[in-house]
Amino acid sequence: MTIIPIQSGASFYLRKGDKLKVTDIKGAQVSDMVLFNARCIKEKISSGKTMDFEESILLSKGNYLWSNRGRKMMEILEDTNGRNDFLLAPCSAETFKIMYGHEGYHPSCHDNLTKNLKDYSIEEDDIPTAFNIFMNVQFDEQGKLSVEKPTSKAGDYVLFEAKMNLIVGLTACSAEDSNGGSFKPIGYEIISAE
Amino acid sequence: MTIIPIQSGASFYLRKGDKLKVTDIKGAQVSDMVLFNARCIKEKISSGKTMDFEESILLSKGNYLWSNRGRKMMEILEDTNGRNDFLLAPCSAETFKIMYGHEGYHPSCHDNLTKNLKDYSIEEDDIPTAFNIFMNVQFDEQGKLSVEKPTSKAGDYVLFEAKMNLIVGLTACSAEDSNGGSFKPIGYEIISAE
Repeated sequence: MTIIPIQSGASFYLRKGDKLKVTDIKGAQVSDMVLFNARCIKEKISSGKTMDFEESILLSKGNYLWSNRGRKMMEILEDTNGRNDFLLAPCSAETFKIMYGHEGYHPSCHDNLTKNLKDYSIEEDDIPTAFNIFMNVQFDEQGKLSVEKPTSKAGDYVLFEAKMNLIVGLTACSAEDSNGGSFKPIGYEIISAE
Repeated sequence: MTIIPIQSGASFYLRKGDKLKVTDIKGAQVSDMVLFNARCIKEKISSGKTMDFEESILLSKGNYLWSNRGRKMMEILEDTNGRNDFLLAPCSAETFKIMYGHEGYHPSCHDNLTKNLKDYSIEEDDIPTAFNIFMNVQFDEQGKLSVEKPTSKAGDYVLFEAKMNLIVGLTACSAEDSNGGSFKPIGYEIISAE
């Protein structure tokens, strides 16, 4: 298992058919994931297409993650925790300034995704809304949103299968509120199809 | 008032401070809206940033629409209907194929936004999840989504104010399920700040 240290990120290729296992090593830690078509980075993961085609805000085992071109990018094969978020954008410098009132530099998922994806010619403005693994965003009937401590325990994991050749960006999330107040690492394993 | 004919779209510039009034002329008709910074089209409306910073799935009077750079693009000044959607991507060729089982060409918001924005060097892959004015997407506690007939009546409108110089794409939506089974025009007026 590869370890993503606290408040950092990683990027890698997945071939069609490869499986990706993302593990919450210590529990209550979010991992933001973005996906790009490895052959054309203009095709990327889309929250709007995914919620539209899956007809659900909540996504877990059996659901697919779709691209802006309306094609399947990944399937969720297993999900031992069962709570993920696809509503909220990755935490960014503005998040900490606007939502937390933080001054100065703060590590963020947006920054960590940008840093790790620049070698693939993916620029900051191209980072889409991420699939937020283990993130516990609650909503009420009026649509009011709140970010709660993740329900994931140490060892919980989500197993994905790539449905096309992918560039993947993945983080150990940097936002206090998303992770129950403390930052922890995230683990991932690539199970090759070949 | 400018009329967008059924199953078509429009595009135009808004200056910072200009107001845009989008009117449901006949009732129960959705209008998809996308926004780009007129000075840099890499900055555009973001559902993830908006739901994050507004802390709500539902957006109406008093809410802002935010960009992928975490900046305010528009404020909603008035909303006589009160139900809009920012979860679902604009209907597209894939929507009609996958969700409706439709074969062959079908007009779509994605197609109409692409056609109307190409003169601004905005390409098909750059169309983000739209702010779906008057769209009635219901969700339950489990996050299950359903597209219902809009509650808007003839003459209902939403009034926006531009918070930066904008390129706007706007449609009269082409999807049967989103509009209560029949297609109607959409009206819009630009109230200049100067």
